[in-house]
Amino acid sequence: MKNLFGSPGKVSGLVLRLGQCFFAASSLGVMAAAPGFSTATTFCYLIASMCLQLLWSFGLACFDVHALRSKRDLHNNIFVSLFVVGDWVTSTLTLAAASSSAGVTVLLIKDTNACRMERKFSCDMFQVSVGLAFVSWFLLAISSYVMFWLAATA
Amino acid sequence: MKNLFGSPGKVSGLVLRLGQCFFAASSLGVMAAAPGFSTATTFCYLIASMCLQLLWSFGLACFDVHALRSKRDLHNNIFVSLFVVGDWVTSTLTLAAASSSAGVTVLLIKDTNACRMERKFSCDMFQVSVGLAFVSWFLLAISSYVMFWLAATA
Repeated sequence: MKNLFGSPGKVSGLVLRLGQCFFAASSLGVMAAAPGFSTATTFCYLIASMCLQLLWSFGLACFDVHALRSKRDLHNNIFVSLFVVGDWVTSTLTLAAASSSAGVTVLLIKDTNACRMERKFSCDMFQVSVGLAFVSWFLLAISSYVMFWLAATA
Repeated sequence: MKNLFGSPGKVSGLVLRLGQCFFAASSLGVMAAAPGFSTATTFCYLIASMCLQLLWSFGLACFDVHALRSKRDLHNNIFVSLFVVGDWVTSTLTLAAASSSAGVTVLLIKDTNACRMERKFSCDMFQVSVGLAFVSWFLLAISSYVMFWLAATA
């Protein structure tokens, strides 16, 4: 069970965490660079949520590097319980942020034509940022379920 | 492990499923009755998602009633795997629908003042519907984690 794909202290776990960092940072960067993002509260919430996910995933990636270098086993109950709670909270917040931003983007592009009528919005960048946030959430959801499986079978 | 709170074929599981049905039906009813909901795609998606959750939770509540009446054990691997996948899909869709609707509601009320300027929107009803959808998602998330725990420890 300790050799499960994506478990902490394994190369696959590190790759998953680095992927989460990369997509969260990309989503954050694209949204922060998009003109007019501050008009909608939900885009600001996406930025805050991506910051939180970036910090969490980067912290766990550092943990994985430390465990791989020192060949230390991270599969004890305290670590796994902490990872389960943290992953669950961040994945829920990330999905909520990505979905709410997707809802607002669809409203601006399709329902109200605000993107065509007002030049201050950069709707293409909003779409790219939301897409990257969903990829980041998907990778985090995998980690989250692996951690929960490890906790349940500990 | 079979006596876990909210597991299938138990009274607590039935209560949880009936709660999900009640809140999903309430959210669906309030949103469908709110004037102007069809303006935003995300509110239509909330209705579709609540319909799906209502059908799923009602189906499982019927299963629970049948199991309680016939005293049949639902804790076999095929049932639990099916419940895990179904619960995961519906809870993800419900959270996405509730969050996207919340994002659009905040945009209409706070960011653009559309609720005050245009009388065709019933923003109070949008808020109530979104709140009920979040409660429904929370109950479904509990069921989802209980099922996953049962699958992991089977």
